[in-house]
Amino acid sequence: MSRMDELYTELTRLLREAALLSSCGSVLSWDEQTYMPKLGSAHRAEQLGFLAGLAHERSTSPRIGELLSELERSGELGDADGDLAVNVREARRTYDRQTKLPRRLVEEISRTTTLSQQAWVAAREDSNFNDFLPWLDKMIGLKREEAQAVGFGDGVPYDALLDDYEPGMTAAEVHRVFSPLRDELVKLVAAIQHSSRRPHIEILSRHYPKTPQIVLAEGASKAIGFNFEAGRIDESAHPFCTGIGPGDCRLTTRYSDHHFNSAFFGVLHESGHGIYDQGLPVESFGLGIGQATSLGIHESQSRLWENFVGRSRSFWQYLFPTAQTAFPKALGDVSLDEFYFAINDVRPSLIRVEADEVTYNLHIMLRFEIEQQLVSGDLKPADVPGVWNEKVHKYFGLTVPNDSNGCLQDIHWSAGLLGYFPTYALGNMYAAQLFVAAGRDLGNLDEAFSRGHFKPLKGWLNEKIHRHGKRFRAKRLVEVVTGESLSHEPLIAHLRSKYSALYGL
Amino acid sequence: MSRMDELYTELTRLLREAALLSSCGSVLSWDEQTYMPKLGSAHRAEQLGFLAGLAHERSTSPRIGELLSELERSGELGDADGDLAVNVREARRTYDRQTKLPRRLVEEISRTTTLSQQAWVAAREDSNFNDFLPWLDKMIGLKREEAQAVGFGDGVPYDALLDDYEPGMTAAEVHRVFSPLRDELVKLVAAIQHSSRRPHIEILSRHYPKTPQIVLAEGASKAIGFNFEAGRIDESAHPFCTGIGPGDCRLTTRYSDHHFNSAFFGVLHESGHGIYDQGLPVESFGLGIGQATSLGIHESQSRLWENFVGRSRSFWQYLFPTAQTAFPKALGDVSLDEFYFAINDVRPSLIRVEADEVTYNLHIMLRFEIEQQLVSGDLKPADVPGVWNEKVHKYFGLTVPNDSNGCLQDIHWSAGLLGYFPTYALGNMYAAQLFVAAGRDLGNLDEAFSRGHFKPLKGWLNEKIHRHGKRFRAKRLVEVVTGESLSHEPLIAHLRSKYSALYGL
Repeated sequence: MSRMDELYTELTRLLREAALLSSCGSVLSWDEQTYMPKLGSAHRAEQLGFLAGLAHERSTSPRIGELLSELERSGELGDADGDLAVNVREARRTYDRQTKLPRRLVEEISRTTTLSQQAWVAAREDSNFNDFLPWLDKMIGLKREEAQAVGFGDGVPYDALLDDYEPGMTAAEVHRVFSPLRDELVKLVAAIQHSSRRPHIEILSRHYPKTPQIVLAEGASKAIGFNFEAGRIDESAHPFCTGIGPGDCRLTTRYSDHHFNSAFFGVLHESGHGIYDQGLPVESFGLGIGQATSLGIHESQSRLWENFVGRSRSFWQYLFPTAQTAFPKALGDVSLDEFYFAINDVRPSLIRVEADEVTYNLHIMLRFEIEQQLVSGDLKPADVPGVWNEKVHKYFGLTVPNDSNGCLQDIHWSAGLLGYFPTYALGNMYAAQLFVAAGRDLGNLDEAFSRGHFKPLKGWLNEKIHRHGKRFRAKRLVEVVTGESLSHEPLIAHLRSKYSALYGL
Repeated sequence: MSRMDELYTELTRLLREAALLSSCGSVLSWDEQTYMPKLGSAHRAEQLGFLAGLAHERSTSPRIGELLSELERSGELGDADGDLAVNVREARRTYDRQTKLPRRLVEEISRTTTLSQQAWVAAREDSNFNDFLPWLDKMIGLKREEAQAVGFGDGVPYDALLDDYEPGMTAAEVHRVFSPLRDELVKLVAAIQHSSRRPHIEILSRHYPKTPQIVLAEGASKAIGFNFEAGRIDESAHPFCTGIGPGDCRLTTRYSDHHFNSAFFGVLHESGHGIYDQGLPVESFGLGIGQATSLGIHESQSRLWENFVGRSRSFWQYLFPTAQTAFPKALGDVSLDEFYFAINDVRPSLIRVEADEVTYNLHIMLRFEIEQQLVSGDLKPADVPGVWNEKVHKYFGLTVPNDSNGCLQDIHWSAGLLGYFPTYALGNMYAAQLFVAAGRDLGNLDEAFSRGHFKPLKGWLNEKIHRHGKRFRAKRLVEVVTGESLSHEPLIAHLRSKYSALYGL
């Protein structure tokens, strides 16, 4: 064994051990949200805290720093896009970020997160922003400290936070694509508002018994390529996808007897995340090549299956007869086109997670604009409700009746997830770009979907996106795969074409 | 803080950390047997192996040895039955046992266990003892090594193994109670065999739909005192109970549409284990006072609820009307007495886990006799099938048709669990002794059961047994609680009285 091989072998062993500990935590977190009995929560918090501490201790061990330095100095890492160089680069990135944060700050953020989320839950229930304000204030302060500790270019602390979720992305770049996207969306929403056509959305709130909902959703998940031998779907209050490790990826959803959309499209969405996770190279577990490249790309996978596939007419040409058989009472008298229009209803609304494909991105932009100013210090936490309500009026023409339906609706800020929101809209843009490229490479996708053939698309994503892990940063990955750089245009083109047809614009 | 307080605080912190790691492993093991997708098994084995290694490393850390020595030398541990002295004593016991075993031996036993269980599964399927023989041979050798490393008095290596499950118990003591118990049981079984009365057992294999089975079993579990806010019941191939930590105890069972007994009594059995677990003092998690005292006492709790309560006539006076409503087709035309007789059917059989309350203990004795001789070297592994079949003929008058229904039926030896079997029968004897004492203290238990009142008995067990954890060793605990030492007589008296009435002896 050469010296290089020895160093690299030791490094991968240490990285895998830290990842094993994290993946134990993933099982415990999944269990906490699915099956754990109520009174188990205090003990679970102790378990998770202890595991997180051990994982942090291991992933910041000075030995990793030594190994990285020696490997980097060797000049023998080869092709910068090769597994070796990528794994070392990503290990360096994680190691630097984690070791730059003083332990005191990490612990204070962790403690504050727990308390701040509790305060947020109570404040949202009472719709009382003032009860949450001190926590928001404290959290913003801590995240600004985090940004300072991590460091950033161009004097924009927000970039240091965004970079944690979307490596290499900057607020300026987000602004560059969000700005024209916003203008186009506002125009499109207005046009739709002026259309006289309206779908019969009441058909989606008829009675949908749970058992056939499960069968239909799991059948669709399997059809698009989620592997149930290496994963499963359970129920939780808040849907999520967690990759536990090779051969084990867990999705959750929630079923409501009188809402067709939430479970079905929730499952498609999480299945998109799950298919990405199941497509990562198992032999690279714990290393850069074995990890998703960014939250934006992760979201592109979920949105692609949920919206570009799952909300297409061709998809329902395939699945609608099955849905009618599953729900004869609710769907027996509904035509394919009525159903297709109903699941693509567009209307301005107050709540992000219930928003349609068109208005969704406006919800994100509003949050991005606010959180950027919070982190820069240009906006005081106390002024958030006012600014929020103003923007809702500007983008949607709606009046926010109370903060529960306004700035208190999302958990993110209370959980310290600042810089996270833009990745949702980036995901939508990436999805559109990838979908165009897939169509170019694979031919008539609609024809395939209408016959229930999803393997070509899934295989294309496996080949182009999943198997690379973190080999390429998100922006470059999209360039490599599509030949184009990040742009709002494919998304706008998709929305304009689809909704012009539906609403007769 | 005094020096003593400092040492003790550090010790408890280290012990709790090791216990936290083990309890993370418990969640992962539970998940493995309930919900884990098939392809997750390789990764799960890595996670569990890594956690077990970390837990072992922590629980054998030399610092624990130093703290224990200094605390023991201090002469300030106070009352030998007090929390402090007990926690130090039990920590010493675990530490010594774990540090006496060479790492090489621990790892070899662990590796061999995995392979040996795989070989056992295949050998049992093919009913081919010879395929399992080399593994049994190897396992016995390793367990003899373990006994030598741990040490034992009186030249009986088996005692060192038994002591791991039933602290302080010896083979000689087991023999002392098993011998008269066997003689009495053989007589009782013969008398029952000669009776002309026979229950209509076919009523128990009628159609019992799964959903009402779940409702009835969970209702009974709740009624006897298992707390579903701090626990739950799921399904697994092999029923078990695992205490994950304060506020979180998981039971499993399996449902079969054409067997009433297995799920229902399985749930009562596991609930008995669970009620013990839920009754341990949560503030002593990871310490001796927070842990069950022995497997025998654990089993006494499960058997007490399963057999002494759940198979009593008074229990069914309370629950039979509910059962009839749940299964109108299967039980509509059955009387309480017919049902009560059917669930107490006694007949010699080949399979331990399907055996009734009377013959069950003979299955245990047979195994105890054989494994003792295997460990002493008086019996060669190759001769196990012959001896097994001879004993089955002697105790039950039955001929073993093949080894799958004979010496290959249990997982224990393949899993290295030598010295474990006697705890099942000890549990039955302890249960009988405790049940007599409870009746003495609480008055007419049958009257309470017939009205569905189980709180007095559960509270009595909480007070007398559960809250003490490992304060007293099993034998002494029973003496303290009942005023009598370990004896076969209460069990025999219970069986003789109950079955004489049923079979008209």
